[in-house]
Amino acid sequence: MFLAKVYVTYKESILDPKGEAIRKSIQQMDYDSVQSVRLGKYFEIIIEAADEEVASREIEEIADKLLANVVMETYRYELEPITSNEANTIQVEKAQLSEEDGDEG
Amino acid sequence: MFLAKVYVTYKESILDPKGEAIRKSIQQMDYDSVQSVRLGKYFEIIIEAADEEVASREIEEIADKLLANVVMETYRYELEPITSNEANTIQVEKAQLSEEDGDEG
Repeated sequence: MFLAKVYVTYKESILDPKGEAIRKSIQQMDYDSVQSVRLGKYFEIIIEAADEEVASREIEEIADKLLANVVMETYRYELEPITSNEANTIQVEKAQLSEEDGDEG
Repeated sequence: MFLAKVYVTYKESILDPKGEAIRKSIQQMDYDSVQSVRLGKYFEIIIEAADEEVASREIEEIADKLLANVVMETYRYELEPITSNEANTIQVEKAQLSEEDGDEG
């Protein structure tokens, strides 16, 4: 079992109006020390895989297909092996959500 | 000069419907190996500060006030000292954006 941490940000060449808007808000709070802000998405994914290589390949496929718009965004990720206990702690929440919305899966 | 990387996620007790929706989409792409997905925000902030302690204090204040909804979200951050060259590379984009929208600042 692995925990994948995926960071999706705009490519360097793509301007980031949301980041710029946040920068301006921060400066209006008198934090002139802030020079720039870039905003991105952050995913924590628990994935069952035989080994790290399989986990990496699947995370890259999932990121390319769904998590990042590869025309405008780029991503990097980290993989950590986790125990099933650690995974279960997170699973408990997922089960609660499934009960509430009558998950068919 | 420091680069702060700030990761904002829902608190463990808060359900994450977006993450759950992404999990279902991923499984519909036949990646049954994915057990759970949590979605968060990721910020890269360049901040001018005399030392790491000052930078930390300001980033925490900014995160508490603006970046995270501290009732439902939690955050962690990393600080990296960067050279002004590295900062300038990112600044060039910011300048382009300011020219376009006639930044009064």
